[in-house]
Amino acid sequence: VSAKPMKQTEGIALVSDIMAVSVVTIDKDASVYDAAKTIMETDFNHLPVTGEDGSIVGIVTAWDISMAVSKNKFDLVADIMTRKVITASADERVAVVARRMDQDSVSAMPVINKSRHVIGIITSDDISKLYARRS
Amino acid sequence: VSAKPMKQTEGIALVSDIMAVSVVTIDKDASVYDAAKTIMETDFNHLPVTGEDGSIVGIVTAWDISMAVSKNKFDLVADIMTRKVITASADERVAVVARRMDQDSVSAMPVINKSRHVIGIITSDDISKLYARRS
Ligand SMILES: C[S@@+](CC[C@H](N)C(=O)[O-])C[C@H]1O[C@@H](n2cnc3c(N)ncnc32)[C@H](O)[C@@H]1O
Repeated sequence: VSAKPMKQTEGIALVSDIMAVSVVTIDKDASVYDAAKTIMETDFNHLPVTGEDGSIVGIVTAWDISMAVSKNKFDLVADIMTRKVITASADERVAVVARRMDQDSVSAMPVINKSRHVIGIITSDDISKLYARRS
Repeated sequence: VSAKPMKQTEGIALVSDIMAVSVVTIDKDASVYDAAKTIMETDFNHLPVTGEDGSIVGIVTAWDISMAVSKNKFDLVADIMTRKVITASADERVAVVARRMDQDSVSAMPVINKSRHVIGIITSDDISKLYARRS
């Protein structure tokens, strides 16, 4: 998990300045067990889920896996993922994305391009780091 | 999960200004299954773990439960929790806590008092919200 070094510590911060670019995704037909293993191995809490053509079809988090545990439901990622993913674009302002995160109560957003392929991920951890650098 | 309303939008932000005060904890002798259920029911990702006298003895997160799943290890919270908890004080500056979060690669810190009882929790989500309000 390597975040890009900050390009700027002043001025308008863009998603592309702070997003992690080496993002790990998981296939919708993978098992919940595979997702758990991937999350554990990578330190990522949020895995964008991809379909046949590699575009994003959902997101699965450590929280969703906890939920599967609490329901004793160990099927496929497709069964437990959130389908309506809230995403960001690389050229958006961090402040705008931070507001959307707050409104939609999520801690991370996959960053996608026009063909809906995942090119990065931005998390509240990244934004918190930015806050730390600027205050 | 109710965060206190922001006391200030300018000036030095303190942990007490943005921490959630209605924090849910879990007993060290609870099962991993109970922890998963609690996380699911409360929307909290991080549960401070308490011992006999109610003081903090660890932290368990959705990430730890994912790990338990990946190892097929469903025992007690005490077996999967992180024992060396990184904590914050209510009177610390948010910027200082944000830097510690970054350095220690955690997304949340229980806020404790002098007797090591949990009085709140501060997450990178809360700090991201603060960033959103200030930029
Ligand atoms: C390395 S983090 C990665 C995921 C994410 N950044 C988070 O904090 O949930 C996951 C591990 O950090 C531990 N952890 C989370 N908050 C902690 C804290 N305040 N102090 C110590 N360990 C913590 C969890 O118990 C888990 O084992």
